[in-house]
Amino acid sequence: MTGRFFHGANAALFTDLYQLTMAQAYLEAGHAGPACFDLFARELPPERGFLVACGQIEALEYLEQLRFSGEDIDYLRSLGKFSDTLLDWLREFRFSGRVRAVPEGRIVFAEEPILSVEAPAPEAQIVETWLLNQVHMQTVLASKAVRVVRAAGESPVLDFGLRRIPGADAGLKAARAYHVAGVAATSNVLAGRVYGVPVAGTMAHSFIQSFDDEREAFRAFADSFPDTILLVDTYDTLRGVDRVVELSRDLGEAFRVSGIRLDSGDLGELARESRRRLNAAGLQSVRIYASGGLDEYSIAELVRAGAPIDGYGVGTAMGVSDDAPFLDVAYKLSAYDGKPRMKLSTGKRSLPGAKQVFRETEGGRLKRDVIAGADEDLAGEPLLKTVMEDGRGLAEPDLDAARERCRRDWDALPEGLQALKAPQRGYPVALSEALSQRMETLRRELES
Amino acid sequence: MTGRFFHGANAALFTDLYQLTMAQAYLEAGHAGPACFDLFARELPPERGFLVACGQIEALEYLEQLRFSGEDIDYLRSLGKFSDTLLDWLREFRFSGRVRAVPEGRIVFAEEPILSVEAPAPEAQIVETWLLNQVHMQTVLASKAVRVVRAAGESPVLDFGLRRIPGADAGLKAARAYHVAGVAATSNVLAGRVYGVPVAGTMAHSFIQSFDDEREAFRAFADSFPDTILLVDTYDTLRGVDRVVELSRDLGEAFRVSGIRLDSGDLGELARESRRRLNAAGLQSVRIYASGGLDEYSIAELVRAGAPIDGYGVGTAMGVSDDAPFLDVAYKLSAYDGKPRMKLSTGKRSLPGAKQVFRETEGGRLKRDVIAGADEDLAGEPLLKTVMEDGRGLAEPDLDAARERCRRDWDALPEGLQALKAPQRGYPVALSEALSQRMETLRRELES
Repeated sequence: MTGRFFHGANAALFTDLYQLTMAQAYLEAGHAGPACFDLFARELPPERGFLVACGQIEALEYLEQLRFSGEDIDYLRSLGKFSDTLLDWLREFRFSGRVRAVPEGRIVFAEEPILSVEAPAPEAQIVETWLLNQVHMQTVLASKAVRVVRAAGESPVLDFGLRRIPGADAGLKAARAYHVAGVAATSNVLAGRVYGVPVAGTMAHSFIQSFDDEREAFRAFADSFPDTILLVDTYDTLRGVDRVVELSRDLGEAFRVSGIRLDSGDLGELARESRRRLNAAGLQSVRIYASGGLDEYSIAELVRAGAPIDGYGVGTAMGVSDDAPFLDVAYKLSAYDGKPRMKLSTGKRSLPGAKQVFRETEGGRLKRDVIAGADEDLAGEPLLKTVMEDGRGLAEPDLDAARERCRRDWDALPEGLQALKAPQRGYPVALSEALSQRMETLRRELES
Repeated sequence: MTGRFFHGANAALFTDLYQLTMAQAYLEAGHAGPACFDLFARELPPERGFLVACGQIEALEYLEQLRFSGEDIDYLRSLGKFSDTLLDWLREFRFSGRVRAVPEGRIVFAEEPILSVEAPAPEAQIVETWLLNQVHMQTVLASKAVRVVRAAGESPVLDFGLRRIPGADAGLKAARAYHVAGVAATSNVLAGRVYGVPVAGTMAHSFIQSFDDEREAFRAFADSFPDTILLVDTYDTLRGVDRVVELSRDLGEAFRVSGIRLDSGDLGELARESRRRLNAAGLQSVRIYASGGLDEYSIAELVRAGAPIDGYGVGTAMGVSDDAPFLDVAYKLSAYDGKPRMKLSTGKRSLPGAKQVFRETEGGRLKRDVIAGADEDLAGEPLLKTVMEDGRGLAEPDLDAARERCRRDWDALPEGLQALKAPQRGYPVALSEALSQRMETLRRELES
């Protein structure tokens, strides 16, 4: 656990100020009864037909460890906004609630709770910012990465995005979300250490450029790492390939270079010509990797064109989820003091009461989901599991199991939803009759 | 400094694996001479006419503190890739280089170095990932935020983005970049503590919903925070406004509510009608804040339409820089062992040798920039300053000074570049004659 961030004092103030003002007002109004909050995506971006839920189990660690230090309290006092009622409460704070969650790696749709928190209102309130931040980030990244992984078919996808994934925390956890989504390895060394995921990487242009001659650079690198992958596009890609061939002649049996990497130009064309030259030199075993501004669309194009590429390095497009960089996730009060609650704000409906999602399948494929009250027992598989009771986690993150769930769920998607472009929207997510009635009753009450 | 991340062991492994393989190969090839690397944006996204350089001075702290712990070394050894040559070198690692940088908050253009690192090749190499990650992230965010700030004119912009800014590190540092860009306050409490920037925030829908009645909720909140801003759109915005008016009647002289917040619907129309109702009740002093999916374009529209809005809360669009979520930043070797270097990869030119940028102005406006060799002395203001010598920082970040630089530079932009939509590209950035000649000579050498 030592590689993760926000242990101790730092985590506590990672929150929106209004969480703390609300906590104080709940406490001062004697209004600290049990609340239920649901974390869900209101709707999906046009480029997404489904989401891969990710981050919610890791976030339990935050709930277990959240404490406000003396320095945190001093800072809050210095703002001149808060009463001793709040500050004393924060000093003793321990999260005591119950959490239900969809297992990481499962595919979910709009309005389906990914996480559901039941706790006294001020407790459930102040954890909102962290939970949203973390589940949003990892769900955005896993939902993008699974598209890239599937576009590449049998070829492995390597994550090269660390330099442009925003900040250190997302940089680390992206590799986690990618592993869940099926990415083969990451360039991120810290992720290897913290999460035990495979790491990969060999060389950049700078190494080549620092030598007067590309041949010299290849030779020096292969001396240090005999089975390396050589980057061939620093000056002229095909000349670079020829130099790899020369190196194989120079080294003879000692030649063990395992691959070349193309990082610019027309990757499909260059891969074909590189393959031809390598094969002509008897280097059939040298694999070809491609990188450089790739995303799921360009990879699908290369695959469709039959480009002889054995693996794809993907960076920025996956790292910022460039075509859908955010999700409309929300964390909404659905019950207080045993009574279902909802808001009526224009375009932002919320579903009242604690809920469960039942997933029906047919012939191994997803058929429809039904969002129901948590107290209902309908046909299909219930997606939300209890993962925390009385503030103690019952589930440890298991990245390999999550990866397997993601693989299985994707395979079971209706074909239209597997499409990269214009994924078929409208996977049927129904509301149970009881939930619909509850909404109707509540709406009438609120509008009266 | 205690609120920042990646002190000690965690920072060191936050790198791409290939930085470490290259370091080993440099060392083993006896190729660890002085190198110069430049960090710059290759080109700007279509939605950006300029960038606000941000993060580069904060990043010096990383260079000063970077150490590899015994656990880091053990992990690297466990990968079975690295020799004792590298591992012993990492154990003793201290960054010993020189850094020049553009001051934070300055406006820069494509190809202009934001940061320039001179150090032995393996040292300069292994810090690439962190430097790119941090400067990219803060520059993306500051460059977006300045657009939002300027669109809002005299009205303050409040940062509400923490929940959807990817991860904890970007979440924190976004508030820093926003302060530089002119954002008035952030909801992010931790940023307040770490950076001393103003924090703001009052209430969310959940607080309102937890009461049976909106009136009750307003009353309870105003009891705890008399001069608060009340969120009025939970059920029906204008009815919410009427309830604020009722509250003012109930409380009489004790009524000190300072504002209302609109968070959904037609914000311009609702602001006008809210203003009318508030004024009719003698509540001219109650301000109107708007939020909910806002960006620079929708704010500019509201301002143009004369909507009576006194402040804007902006979240996700600014937090992920939705219209330009990444920059094509690079960190490229420009010299090794005293010789200028460049790559020729298709579409990715790099400028050889250590450089300086000279900015010419005319009548208080930016006229053109000239990228030159670091040894040249041309007309105009040199943008790059020495900020680190022998691994010791010479400059502490100063956020207020950076904010002032950003304000001044933006005011001095040619008008076409200040435009929100289709900002005029092609601010003239020339290469000095000496630099052009150096490139030509080098190209001929490399192509021979």
